Amino acid sequence: MTAYQDLERRFARIAAIGGALGILGWDTQTMMPDGAADGRAEQTATLSVLAHELMTAPEVADLLAAAEAQGGLDAWQAANLREMRRLHLQATALPADLVEATSKAISTCEMAWRAARAGSDYAALLPSLREVLRLVREGAVAKGAALGISPYDALLDEHDPGSRAARIDALFDDLAGFLPGLLERVLDRQAAEPPVLRPEGPFPVDRQKDLGERLMRAAGFDFTRGRLDVSLHPFCGGANDDVRITTRYDEADFAKALMGVLHETGHALYEQGRPRAWMLQPVGNARGMAAHESQSLIVEMQASRSAEFIGWLAGEARAAFDGRGPAWEPDNLRRLTTRVERGFIRVDADEVTYPAHVILRYRLEKALIAGDLDLADLPAAWNEGMRTLLGVTPPNDRLGCLQDIHWPGGGWGYFPTYTLGAMTAAQLFEAACAAEPDVKPCLARGDFAPLVGWLRTNVHGKGSLPASTDELLVGATGRPLDVAVFKRHLERRYLGA
Amino acid sequence: MTAYQDLERRFARIAAIGGALGILGWDTQTMMPDGAADGRAEQTATLSVLAHELMTAPEVADLLAAAEAQGGLDAWQAANLREMRRLHLQATALPADLVEATSKAISTCEMAWRAARAGSDYAALLPSLREVLRLVREGAVAKGAALGISPYDALLDEHDPGSRAARIDALFDDLAGFLPGLLERVLDRQAAEPPVLRPEGPFPVDRQKDLGERLMRAAGFDFTRGRLDVSLHPFCGGANDDVRITTRYDEADFAKALMGVLHETGHALYEQGRPRAWMLQPVGNARGMAAHESQSLIVEMQASRSAEFIGWLAGEARAAFDGRGPAWEPDNLRRLTTRVERGFIRVDADEVTYPAHVILRYRLEKALIAGDLDLADLPAAWNEGMRTLLGVTPPNDRLGCLQDIHWPGGGWGYFPTYTLGAMTAAQLFEAACAAEPDVKPCLARGDFAPLVGWLRTNVHGKGSLPASTDELLVGATGRPLDVAVFKRHLERRYLGA
Repeated sequence: MTAYQDLERRFARIAAIGGALGILGWDTQTMMPDGAADGRAEQTATLSVLAHELMTAPEVADLLAAAEAQGGLDAWQAANLREMRRLHLQATALPADLVEATSKAISTCEMAWRAARAGSDYAALLPSLREVLRLVREGAVAKGAALGISPYDALLDEHDPGSRAARIDALFDDLAGFLPGLLERVLDRQAAEPPVLRPEGPFPVDRQKDLGERLMRAAGFDFTRGRLDVSLHPFCGGANDDVRITTRYDEADFAKALMGVLHETGHALYEQGRPRAWMLQPVGNARGMAAHESQSLIVEMQASRSAEFIGWLAGEARAAFDGRGPAWEPDNLRRLTTRVERGFIRVDADEVTYPAHVILRYRLEKALIAGDLDLADLPAAWNEGMRTLLGVTPPNDRLGCLQDIHWPGGGWGYFPTYTLGAMTAAQLFEAACAAEPDVKPCLARGDFAPLVGWLRTNVHGKGSLPASTDELLVGATGRPLDVAVFKRHLERRYLGA
Repeated sequence: MTAYQDLERRFARIAAIGGALGILGWDTQTMMPDGAADGRAEQTATLSVLAHELMTAPEVADLLAAAEAQGGLDAWQAANLREMRRLHLQATALPADLVEATSKAISTCEMAWRAARAGSDYAALLPSLREVLRLVREGAVAKGAALGISPYDALLDEHDPGSRAARIDALFDDLAGFLPGLLERVLDRQAAEPPVLRPEGPFPVDRQKDLGERLMRAAGFDFTRGRLDVSLHPFCGGANDDVRITTRYDEADFAKALMGVLHETGHALYEQGRPRAWMLQPVGNARGMAAHESQSLIVEMQASRSAEFIGWLAGEARAAFDGRGPAWEPDNLRRLTTRVERGFIRVDADEVTYPAHVILRYRLEKALIAGDLDLADLPAAWNEGMRTLLGVTPPNDRLGCLQDIHWPGGGWGYFPTYTLGAMTAAQLFEAACAAEPDVKPCLARGDFAPLVGWLRTNVHGKGSLPASTDELLVGATGRPLDVAVFKRHLERRYLGA
């Protein structure tokens, strides 16, 4: 057995543990009785430690060095070895005591956050958030040193390989200069249109579920290798060949769960579309979180909120819920599902205002990691940013800087992937439509096949062969991420330009 | 850290992996999409190997020897160390290549069995069953040598610590001499009674489920630490503080699922009733499969089919299913749920005929392991045994020696635990009623509390502190397993004696 072969064997074992953790994670959110939480924490901690031990065993460093020195690998194997090295570096860059201290600080801070958010009491969160930031920054410094990049870039790189702040600055500054003006014009245009009508419920859960599963099938979700269930916070999880998405039903508003299901289906198609023979190897992984978000958003935002698809969906929804009257007309449903509003809460935001929420968080976390902003000044900086970017000022911190769990939970450098994903989705959709003229006509019949076929070839089937999201994008669309495409999409959809 | 403390840490880690495997096993039977089977096999194999490696690591043998030599342990720790040694011996007695060969032979044989059973074609099973038997026997010889007992006793000991064939022979021979005569008398008595009426369905699944969950609550099942779901083959599984039982619903017969739920609830109460602080240690495990079966049968057979409980249940069932007429009278329902019939199939058997099915399998597998019976002669020996013990002759092998998966699946030495459990249940129930006069009056009001309270103290709360099922039984009832109690129970219930 060569060093490389030995590594494949070891990483397959680590991937199998990852699959077990994926199913346990799904179970925790969907099925587990409350009293099992401690036992579950014990199980997942044990499996995580075992996977970490397998990854950081001294032999792995030796094998990586030997495999890199030996050479003689084909392109796929070389990419796989590169990904192994990347994962190994992520796992070994931090001393064990820092990993443990960070994990404990996060547990404490997440609990403090729940109480602080409920009481809109930022001061109550501050001490534990300070500790999390301190430890995350220490880790970022160590990883940055190992990778030869800045601490914040090291955080970005974890979630989106190859992503760098210098490039995001340029993209986001461009967008930040464009969005406030666009928002004004969109709101003016909406105000001049007839009022949007809301279909009246209740919409029984079982019918919502049936319709959701029908749409998943239409989009190409393979139910022999996945499921749809219910959880408080929707997600896409599970394991290889066992992709589990969730949603949450509101009997007063069927569109919410439906669009949520389509969003998670986009993630799921990426997972299910990776080459099956690669799945236990690092090169078989999805390319990163920006790429992943692009797949949820290309299905939810680009395809499912297009006028073509909504035209078809209107008939399906009417039939599913015995809908009658003008609220069920395709044009009304299109305006309803592309309604734009200024708001305080990111997860409730629409396609036009969402990037402003993300740009705000990106700028703030970059400054916090760099030490240019003190956590004590976060609420003021947050509210000032909301005013500038969105024209609203949160009345309290619950509707402001306390709304997201990401920072208390140690998720720094993650926020940008939402908007990088939205831009990537726009660029991929444009390229797909250019390459496959059937994409839109088929969506008008509820048929995702041409779109998903193109994604299978150009995104899903690539796994992590490309070294970065940009490399993936160049392969699929001929050029790196281009903010102009996203701007054009927004103008077309929201201004009819 | 002492050697003993180090062992506790290691066994807790192994137990946590076991918990993860328990949840994955539940998921496989209840939730998993078909296409995920290969990935799941990969996950469970990886976790099983990791647990096995932790158990068989050379340090563990050294630590066990050191802890045993050091002494200074209290009674609980000493029992825990004894159980660690037992598990270690089970894990290390077989060479790795034999374990792997057996596992592969079982996979092959189980597949062959499915086809052979469907086609009632014993000849098609014979070659792969021969291979399984050969490897199981080889393992039994090795384990027997390590334990200083016979090969078949080594198989028994795996499932029911302390169980020995010499003792089972005596118990089962006694029973085998008693049952055929009893069966004749019971059938005569039934024939003289008015015909049993079957309540007419359909019985909607959601109402069956509601009633089942109500009974689980009545029996003391803690839903904050467990669930009820659906699977093809009902079982009790899951993990510590997360006990998951399943059933299967038949819309034409509500009693089947209901009694199945009560059976699995008995298993679940044992799991949930173990002391919580012990759960990650070997001494916190249930005492073995005979003890476990006694807990399912004390709830299902002793309590739930008693005239007292059925009297109460009749009202509940009538209300749940809007039942009307003589079929819903308590006395009819009692006779329905204690109906005795000669039959070919073990899993469909009643309390009186079930032991005959078990005794047959016990005698045959003992002879097969000893080499006194050749597999080629199994069908004939089976049919002869059925004729002698039950007075019926299977018309084909599907209804005969091909009906159970146990032997193809490597489960040798397991069958006796069903009937040892039934006898143990009778003895425990008698002792509980003697100690707590409220047991039966409370069951007549649907209240299991006095019975379950007694079991908590005398069985569940003991974990594996007693070294054997008999030691457990002596502690709870003052004497080892006594077949007379079971015989008395059957005579009372089925002959009104």
